[in-house]
Amino acid sequence: MREPKDALPLRTNAAEPLLVVGSVAYDNIETAYGRGDYILGGSASYASIAASYFAQPRLVGVVGKNFAEQDVARLQTRGVDLDGLQRDESGDTFFWAGKYSEDFSSRETLTTELNVFEKFNPELPKAYRKTKFVLLGNILPQLQARVLAQLDDPGGAFVLADTFELWINTQREALVELLPRVDVLAINDSEARLLTGEKDAIVAGRKLVGPEYGLKMLLLKKGEHGSLLFHPEGLFALPAYPVTELRDPTGAGDSYAGAILGYLAAQGTSEFGAIKRAMVYGAAVASLTVEAFGCDRLESAGADAIEARYDELVRMVSFT
Amino acid sequence: MREPKDALPLRTNAAEPLLVVGSVAYDNIETAYGRGDYILGGSASYASIAASYFAQPRLVGVVGKNFAEQDVARLQTRGVDLDGLQRDESGDTFFWAGKYSEDFSSRETLTTELNVFEKFNPELPKAYRKTKFVLLGNILPQLQARVLAQLDDPGGAFVLADTFELWINTQREALVELLPRVDVLAINDSEARLLTGEKDAIVAGRKLVGPEYGLKMLLLKKGEHGSLLFHPEGLFALPAYPVTELRDPTGAGDSYAGAILGYLAAQGTSEFGAIKRAMVYGAAVASLTVEAFGCDRLESAGADAIEARYDELVRMVSFT
Repeated sequence: MREPKDALPLRTNAAEPLLVVGSVAYDNIETAYGRGDYILGGSASYASIAASYFAQPRLVGVVGKNFAEQDVARLQTRGVDLDGLQRDESGDTFFWAGKYSEDFSSRETLTTELNVFEKFNPELPKAYRKTKFVLLGNILPQLQARVLAQLDDPGGAFVLADTFELWINTQREALVELLPRVDVLAINDSEARLLTGEKDAIVAGRKLVGPEYGLKMLLLKKGEHGSLLFHPEGLFALPAYPVTELRDPTGAGDSYAGAILGYLAAQGTSEFGAIKRAMVYGAAVASLTVEAFGCDRLESAGADAIEARYDELVRMVSFT
Repeated sequence: MREPKDALPLRTNAAEPLLVVGSVAYDNIETAYGRGDYILGGSASYASIAASYFAQPRLVGVVGKNFAEQDVARLQTRGVDLDGLQRDESGDTFFWAGKYSEDFSSRETLTTELNVFEKFNPELPKAYRKTKFVLLGNILPQLQARVLAQLDDPGGAFVLADTFELWINTQREALVELLPRVDVLAINDSEARLLTGEKDAIVAGRKLVGPEYGLKMLLLKKGEHGSLLFHPEGLFALPAYPVTELRDPTGAGDSYAGAILGYLAAQGTSEFGAIKRAMVYGAAVASLTVEAFGCDRLESAGADAIEARYDELVRMVSFT
């Protein structure tokens, strides 16, 4: 197992690896501060790099014929296991172009070209099938289910799943069927309202972890307003790290999820207290991601910056 | 000193009284859940009732000839000292009518009749001038300054001031002049952005407590997303209590401020740790306020409900 130079001390050989399934993409991003073209993006890229500070990510995804060797190298330098990264020479890599409003309160999608991602069928290399920590990035719920079906012991794994508006609107049945099979659903507040038809995010959250949906835990993401974990042992609320140099919010949620799973894998546990600490690490890592375009700051942040923000967040919410 | 039956145990005779200056009003309120007419409202009413669980509020405000004896009695039952409440027989009490959108994300003002509030000139009874904890509710900044000038030792008092968009737009100079003379400015995030011209609330907050404005502390209110205290010793972030029975958000901010000042007065201190605990009490009290129209739930909540929500909030943010 390779370890990046600047991993956290808790990334040891005793740490469990984690599985990261999702998109690997090229993004064109435009903000009030500038623009970047053909930036390495996609949920699996952000989540893997974030997780790599804590434990070894095993990436399952697909790239096309235009995927650059230097981007393969970026992921390898972070110690990401790429045995599960398919290369489909029949087309280009998933491409997305978007533009953020001046105050980052909204974004407009300019282009989405699914390319090889359209036919993506996740296949787990044999060595991956025993992975105990699984991050199902935002892909079709049917594909997320197919990943779980390939695990040797899906019930013994700790599974966090992401989704988004499009699947809530178009793949509702498959998504709802998946919920009792995952441990945590990580979605934002508007998605929780859309999924349940409730106007209030807290009411929506309680409903999702209630008998109707049978979800174990809900991680409600509220961006700059932090996040809220609905856990069988109680609610946990965490503010966001107070970012003052916001440059590109792309990948914040994926970095958050990646760091959370990475921390849990490194600790080899999913008990409530560990998830709380994982969320603080996640908030620290996500705050670094958004301070530069794409994965740049996330990639270069280093363990010290992550630990410093972890400590700062803990101080920010403590009474003593 | 009178004590309401259901005050918190920390409301003792050793507790300092607090001064509450602001509006006393009648409100017509319309929400998706119903409507209420001529409800007792105004910043000073909400803040005084909230504070009354902790310490004795001394209310300075004005009411008109239509102010009902039963509303005087409501405040007296809460142990509010009304020696500073002026009655102006030349007109009616300040009247406001508003309508909330279905999901409470916005509200429309239908009517504002200032009535006797237009000529309001706060005058502190002699006994009030030594008060050490002062809440300057949302009135003209010039009137807030006039209150401070009437204190025997304004520098020795702990002063929290509220304001709003109208004064930021029309009384900017007077408001900015007031800032170095108060201890805490409590405003919401959009007001902080408006006041500083910054797009980001965190950047705006840091600027307000910087050399340009000379404010000691900023309490940034974010409604359902909690609040953030910019204190010389550091930031403190607190989530809101997870309300599921939102019925009328009117007075949430005033209850929040009232409970904070009430707690500090009861403790006779304004050190950082005490302000943090005061914010938790404030969030607990504000969450009760919004569960019914006007002051109804705030008035009837009782010490046990407040303590229970305080404990729940502390658990929600704790790691152990």
